[in-house]
Amino acid sequence: MINVSVIGASGYGGGEVVRLLVGHPEVRLAHLVGDTRAGEPFSDVFPNMRGVVDARTEPLDAARVAADSDVVFLALPNGMAMSLVPQLGERVKVIDLGADFRFRRGAAYERWYKMPHTAEGLLGQAVYGLPELHRADIRRARIVGNPGCYPVAALLAVAPFLANGLASPRGIVIDAKSGVSGAGRGTSSRTHFSEVNENVFAYGTPGHRHTGELEEELGAIAADVNLTFTPHLIPMTRGILATVYLHPVHQVTQAEAEAAFSEMYAGEPFVRILDGEHLPQTKATLGSNFCDVAVRVDPRSGMLIAFAAIDNLMKGAAGSAVQNMNLMCGFPEETGLRAPGLFP
Amino acid sequence: MINVSVIGASGYGGGEVVRLLVGHPEVRLAHLVGDTRAGEPFSDVFPNMRGVVDARTEPLDAARVAADSDVVFLALPNGMAMSLVPQLGERVKVIDLGADFRFRRGAAYERWYKMPHTAEGLLGQAVYGLPELHRADIRRARIVGNPGCYPVAALLAVAPFLANGLASPRGIVIDAKSGVSGAGRGTSSRTHFSEVNENVFAYGTPGHRHTGELEEELGAIAADVNLTFTPHLIPMTRGILATVYLHPVHQVTQAEAEAAFSEMYAGEPFVRILDGEHLPQTKATLGSNFCDVAVRVDPRSGMLIAFAAIDNLMKGAAGSAVQNMNLMCGFPEETGLRAPGLFP
Amino acid sequence: MINVSVIGASGYGGGEVVRLLVGHPEVRLAHLVGDTRAGEPFSDVFPNMRGVVDARTEPLDAARVAADSDVVFLALPNGMAMSLVPQLGERVKVIDLGADFRFRRGAAYERWYKMPHTAEGLLGQAVYGLPELHRADIRRARIVGNPGCYPVAALLAVAPFLANGLASPRGIVIDAKSGVSGAGRGTSSRTHFSEVNENVFAYGTPGHRHTGELEEELGAIAADVNLTFTPHLIPMTRGILATVYLHPVHQVTQAEAEAAFSEMYAGEPFVRILDGEHLPQTKATLGSNFCDVAVRVDPRSGMLIAFAAIDNLMKGAAGSAVQNMNLMCGFPEETGLRAPGLFP
Amino acid sequence: MINVSVIGASGYGGGEVVRLLVGHPEVRLAHLVGDTRAGEPFSDVFPNMRGVVDARTEPLDAARVAADSDVVFLALPNGMAMSLVPQLGERVKVIDLGADFRFRRGAAYERWYKMPHTAEGLLGQAVYGLPELHRADIRRARIVGNPGCYPVAALLAVAPFLANGLASPRGIVIDAKSGVSGAGRGTSSRTHFSEVNENVFAYGTPGHRHTGELEEELGAIAADVNLTFTPHLIPMTRGILATVYLHPVHQVTQAEAEAAFSEMYAGEPFVRILDGEHLPQTKATLGSNFCDVAVRVDPRSGMLIAFAAIDNLMKGAAGSAVQNMNLMCGFPEETGLRAPGLFP
Repeated sequence: MINVSVIGASGYGGGEVVRLLVGHPEVRLAHLVGDTRAGEPFSDVFPNMRGVVDARTEPLDAARVAADSDVVFLALPNGMAMSLVPQLGERVKVIDLGADFRFRRGAAYERWYKMPHTAEGLLGQAVYGLPELHRADIRRARIVGNPGCYPVAALLAVAPFLANGLASPRGIVIDAKSGVSGAGRGTSSRTHFSEVNENVFAYGTPGHRHTGELEEELGAIAADVNLTFTPHLIPMTRGILATVYLHPVHQVTQAEAEAAFSEMYAGEPFVRILDGEHLPQTKATLGSNFCDVAVRVDPRSGMLIAFAAIDNLMKGAAGSAVQNMNLMCGFPEETGLRAPGLFP
Repeated sequence: MINVSVIGASGYGGGEVVRLLVGHPEVRLAHLVGDTRAGEPFSDVFPNMRGVVDARTEPLDAARVAADSDVVFLALPNGMAMSLVPQLGERVKVIDLGADFRFRRGAAYERWYKMPHTAEGLLGQAVYGLPELHRADIRRARIVGNPGCYPVAALLAVAPFLANGLASPRGIVIDAKSGVSGAGRGTSSRTHFSEVNENVFAYGTPGHRHTGELEEELGAIAADVNLTFTPHLIPMTRGILATVYLHPVHQVTQAEAEAAFSEMYAGEPFVRILDGEHLPQTKATLGSNFCDVAVRVDPRSGMLIAFAAIDNLMKGAAGSAVQNMNLMCGFPEETGLRAPGLFP
Repeated sequence: MINVSVIGASGYGGGEVVRLLVGHPEVRLAHLVGDTRAGEPFSDVFPNMRGVVDARTEPLDAARVAADSDVVFLALPNGMAMSLVPQLGERVKVIDLGADFRFRRGAAYERWYKMPHTAEGLLGQAVYGLPELHRADIRRARIVGNPGCYPVAALLAVAPFLANGLASPRGIVIDAKSGVSGAGRGTSSRTHFSEVNENVFAYGTPGHRHTGELEEELGAIAADVNLTFTPHLIPMTRGILATVYLHPVHQVTQAEAEAAFSEMYAGEPFVRILDGEHLPQTKATLGSNFCDVAVRVDPRSGMLIAFAAIDNLMKGAAGSAVQNMNLMCGFPEETGLRAPGLFP
Repeated sequence: MINVSVIGASGYGGGEVVRLLVGHPEVRLAHLVGDTRAGEPFSDVFPNMRGVVDARTEPLDAARVAADSDVVFLALPNGMAMSLVPQLGERVKVIDLGADFRFRRGAAYERWYKMPHTAEGLLGQAVYGLPELHRADIRRARIVGNPGCYPVAALLAVAPFLANGLASPRGIVIDAKSGVSGAGRGTSSRTHFSEVNENVFAYGTPGHRHTGELEEELGAIAADVNLTFTPHLIPMTRGILATVYLHPVHQVTQAEAEAAFSEMYAGEPFVRILDGEHLPQTKATLGSNFCDVAVRVDPRSGMLIAFAAIDNLMKGAAGSAVQNMNLMCGFPEETGLRAPGLFP
């Protein structure tokens, strides 16, 4: 049994971590920190948790959290984790759901997030928390920068085709469709029911911040990556579908294309490869840590079309975070994450 | 460990039972029978289950199911269970999610379902499967008639006020709002996305079949019950909210009204009583077996307004069914049902 | 041709008035006042209007609006219209979509809106703007207090049964289901997509402010009215369905019940009476000024169940407002309001 | 005044044509043919039309329709129009909302629709009904093959960049997101509320039939077109957003890219060009005949990202069809189509 705290427990990402930890057999909850709603019962903040976690959320006391915790999850606005992690000391394992520890160098962070990185010295200890790409490093890491929700889906769709050289690293198109919960719990006209419902639109394009992570991670697989990433908001709460268009370096068959997935993801506990009859749908992943992938060869254009579907709050955030905790702590990787999703 | 089969596993209710059984530590799945989709992998029928239950659904072979199972769940169109249960023999415990075993007498069934009851002899062995009302009997039952989704919510909202005599049994109004999954997996214009989305309407009123169960169960608590039940379809997938209007027999305070709930539901593992600051919302129960209840006294009209929110496929169907199995088999009542719901 | 201005044109109610006025053959738009977004093109505030009304919204200049306008629509937070109307002078006709001019006396307003009424002297000149109840008075009125969205639906469902004495004025239950746009354009957790989507809940109960209007208007039809009103939010953008439960004073037939509607609404241009085979659905009114009504007699309980469906922004707000303008200005009542709704 | 009939008036496309014709000042409705629901009042088939068009739908009598009509709209399953049009004679103008008259040659039709074209002789008289590309020919046409919903959006987004040579005709990626009404009124698991709601998925890829139209129309603008088209279903009723990725032939600025739109669409009544601050959203077009377009240059990848948003039943079907009728009959092009959409 380990002691685990969540800082930023009142947001959607943090709340989902708490939901998962409650069902994790190796975890005892230590502190639930939610500054803006400190003092309220956690079950007022997350009404699904009534009768399950009724303890009050706390204001931040970094020293106390550090003293009482083996693992701390951070689910905070970008820029806050980098000042908080140093206060937690060297003993505590940290999993940051924000962007502060996703980049190898501060300069990349600064380019995309328009603020200086004040804890560059820690970036060397941090690992990008996508187990399918960095499992061995995550096992040894003290700090994990959990990936952004879009990159989880997009990287899992693209990586196999760059890794085995089947697709060109140039001209990659990533068209992603996300549920609204990815925009967080803060209210705005973009998340106002009446304006999002019965609507679809692209946003933050070109230049959405997740482009940075995508370039860095794909750049570690293949040289000279060039990609276009366009996120869209669609009227649902959870889920991301990434549709990715790749140029194969030579003509490929459907079987060759599928083999790229099966070679890379054989044995992966949370990646499900759909065959030529099925295409990913976000609903099949709702509430679970699965990522469903599939690929099609377009016989007319010759392009590869790869798909990945996830629950943005699970595999796209809290699920991956708990998967990382399992790796960092030596628990079986699927511990606490075995529940299939809801359907319908 | 017991062996459990599900007949009607390709519908929403049956599929949800399978999802719960997969996470139940005392259960081994024996047969998944889904006549209309027999031969297909279960994970094609329920894509959330890919990699979890990939076994093929089977055509019905009652003798084999009976031989291999300790418990059988039936999730079939009304009228089929009554002919099937006799084929399963006397040893097997049966939980029927349909209406065939909900009534104490065949005549009541025939009045509401317009077909003769062909297994009246078994009704005496059957118990109405709402643990909050019939726990002791369920423990001893061989056959349980699992309640309809609307009655679960409505009965839990109304029963305490009739049981303690606070409300009149006359002039009860039950206005219920349901997600579309309650209408099942069969396609129709009423469940066609483009006609249900952005829409709300009442249906099956007056005289919806669940009125029969409501009258029978409330009639066992108080004499001379008279109620009006109006179901509505609203554009969401899961969830039922029952709003119930009751005439108190004398002027009551908010505290007295709330006490009716706390007296009846103290210790109930799946009924959560909200206080005067919160009202039930279906989203707080999504994917869980909880029923959230609250009550308000309207100071102007004097009426009691009681609310109950559930996930119609969980507490309203499969969750209650597994709760009943736990009681019938002597497992702790919450086994396999502890997961809180998703929020958001 | 008359000159018409809208104050509060950046909210949903005001914007919908503008949309209707653009298609009204007797109207020239004078000023679109939207203080919080003054200076922005109206088509940035309402992107549906791009290329239709690209003029900039203006800050409030009451004298200028008064000088340039024959009719002024006010769509403002409660409490603002009462201070603004005196500034518009005696010549201008005013239609207020807020609550300030809905009550006959300031005391009633103060009871429900918890603020003093500062223009009580004008209430005598104001008429409650539901044409089906007050057409003759509206024709002669200079100030119209446009009804609340819930009261439009509820009053049209209830009034005939009190007017002809068929139903008791006691123990009326009004259970209303509304789309989210009724909560306005301001953001809040209650209108946050991720928390409203896939959810249903009651709110503001008991004691929602619209109860005041309902009591006042029904009290003018029958003595000794006693009602319970419960509004619910459901996951759709537009639409209100009111389900109303009434005690008939003697046993009634379905035909008698329907006759109440046909007697009162014969010749009404915007009330459509559905027969015994159909029940109102909000989608059938989407974007139109129609109110669809139906009634059922419950043979078991004896109660009358009356239904009314509207588009809350149309018949529930802007559509009624333009209907009132037509009456006040002597135009044919349906002018600019003939478009049927969208389906699906 | 002309006499107009609609054959296939009980489906979504045909019903929307009727809705528009009712508000068209030059049109008298002659026959509403809806074979499967013949004999029912049209307002039972489309409940929004109650009190507006209550006439009964009729079984098909081609001779009578031909005799009584100046213009006939066909909204039928693919393959039916080609056998029906010859029966309507040479005098009647025909606008077919299906695919039968969209291709210049029968062979192309047969390749995509897997059935022989039995009226190849008429294809020479037919014009592809996208006014922005073929206005002059439509004016002179007797038969118009109204475009598919996806092609309307995709062609309006792509055409300007091929027409002025700014983008390469090779490697075009068209990623489209559609509301569910595009799948029609027939029920299926793909349009079943509980399985589409809270879900997104691609379908019919590669090789969706609309690819044929796209290739033919773009091939008429530029040589050697090569494209990949992927349609997705998202949980809303109406709307299509096409996101198109193009390779510019040389480095372009945002201003150059926008100029492609303004050059081609200056004066177009129904194409609205959004500037660099706004991106198209389907909600801004809901219920209207507008198509909103915008373009972005991605400075990192160099690609052009073009967007087009429409209401699939309006500009994507019935709205374009009425626009074509106006051109064919010499009415002002916007007649009956001026209403802005609903927002929200």
